[in-house]
Amino acid sequence: MLEQATILGPGLLGASLMQALREHALAKRLTTWSRRPETRLKCEGQSWCDAVFASPEEAVTGADLVVVCSPVEHIVPLLERIAPSLSPGCLVTDVGSTKSLICRQGAAVMPTGTHFVGSHPMVGSEKTGLENAFPELFQGGACFVTPLPETDAAAVEKIMRMWKALGMELTSASPEGHDEIVAHISHLPHFLASTLSAYLAGKDPDWRNVAGAGLRDTTRVAAGDPAMWKAIASHNREEILRAIDGFEGELQRLRSALHNQRWLELINLLERGKEYRDSLRKR
Amino acid sequence: MLEQATILGPGLLGASLMQALREHALAKRLTTWSRRPETRLKCEGQSWCDAVFASPEEAVTGADLVVVCSPVEHIVPLLERIAPSLSPGCLVTDVGSTKSLICRQGAAVMPTGTHFVGSHPMVGSEKTGLENAFPELFQGGACFVTPLPETDAAAVEKIMRMWKALGMELTSASPEGHDEIVAHISHLPHFLASTLSAYLAGKDPDWRNVAGAGLRDTTRVAAGDPAMWKAIASHNREEILRAIDGFEGELQRLRSALHNQRWLELINLLERGKEYRDSLRKR
Repeated sequence: MLEQATILGPGLLGASLMQALREHALAKRLTTWSRRPETRLKCEGQSWCDAVFASPEEAVTGADLVVVCSPVEHIVPLLERIAPSLSPGCLVTDVGSTKSLICRQGAAVMPTGTHFVGSHPMVGSEKTGLENAFPELFQGGACFVTPLPETDAAAVEKIMRMWKALGMELTSASPEGHDEIVAHISHLPHFLASTLSAYLAGKDPDWRNVAGAGLRDTTRVAAGDPAMWKAIASHNREEILRAIDGFEGELQRLRSALHNQRWLELINLLERGKEYRDSLRKR
Repeated sequence: MLEQATILGPGLLGASLMQALREHALAKRLTTWSRRPETRLKCEGQSWCDAVFASPEEAVTGADLVVVCSPVEHIVPLLERIAPSLSPGCLVTDVGSTKSLICRQGAAVMPTGTHFVGSHPMVGSEKTGLENAFPELFQGGACFVTPLPETDAAAVEKIMRMWKALGMELTSASPEGHDEIVAHISHLPHFLASTLSAYLAGKDPDWRNVAGAGLRDTTRVAAGDPAMWKAIASHNREEILRAIDGFEGELQRLRSALHNQRWLELINLLERGKEYRDSLRKR
């Protein structure tokens, strides 16, 4: 059991993590800090929060585990800010959706005797904020842990153990490997949903009244926070561009099969798509 | 109340419609025919089915309403086949996902004194077949009715009343107007989901193990029946090609904003997408 776990940024993921750590009794003491005074106020007196601090430096003091749950663009600046206040032996991780930049720069700013190990629990929702937090958010979800070759093996092991204790299925990958994978299975679907929604926004507004469940599901993630996704895009720009180009090639194949009425080719593409979709795990 | 309603093709939509018509007591007698003997067998003795016939001609005999729920490519051939057996005054509709071809050819084959009015209830699921049918399928869904200028107004009114009685929200459109709309809000999302799935199928198979809810939702419709979607594509080819081209233009704008790091432009696109998605009705 941890003496003190500190979660920086108690939004949907951060607050859910505090609730889950409490429910699984993984830490004696849970502390937090939020950039926003109103969020700090909401944490006061919650059963899953033992202390709220006005600065991240105070919040991490005495922690043996720190989890940075801030938006991706704030993670490295926060790591720089808390570094001098970390106790010796402290483990630090994050939940950012991109890993190359964060892991390289994160490792560089950590003081000797502390360890940064990147994480990316693949859970969340287009609904953000502490209000939507719930302790089962991590249960059954997939989670990346992305150590560098030089990262302390015992630190990696401990971080993995924590996510596993919350019910997550773990995958270890290099930060670069992670970024290639999520560019395809998470960022590309997101930007396609946003593009489809933005395209349809330019059409007759009445059309939306007849949209069915298909359009709603296909575009669900487009309801996500634009600022958050802009930050993800800027961190993982090159991999996302590569994924878009690969997708475009496939779309051109479909377009050409349809245009030229090559129906067997179209059916073959639809069948490959169906087989892949049917093979995805349920959660 | 109808004396006899006949549903041809008791699959997900057809069987759900029979169940709904029974539940709402809209027809005294419900008859059906299916191409497949095993489906006919499954209908025998169901509380929502009074008689199953081995031929569509027998099934429609004596009907004052016929709803053709077969796959789009079978609808016109079926209308031709049943035309000589229809009673005077019989109303005929269908539930096909495309309307231009079906409505033009459908009207042409109807005998004098009977009426064809195209319908498209925008409900359904990637789960097909009688086994997945349920009477509430239509409740709260959107439904197109697509009369031609010369279609009998009283017949249109009666068809609209039936769908309304099942809880549907009705939209009247020309068959061509319908096909343009669904190319954008239904067929395009479907083919994008299939293309994304087919593209990812060519990547590392392990990647699917870390996919989250975003990918699952974005690709859900790709699990649909390839043969059914090939038929829809062939009926609505030109409108779907136009929708794909429009989408491609928007995707190129996103790609270019990302490539050139024009972040305000990217955020603007994401915001337009979010606003549109947030404006979609819940069901």
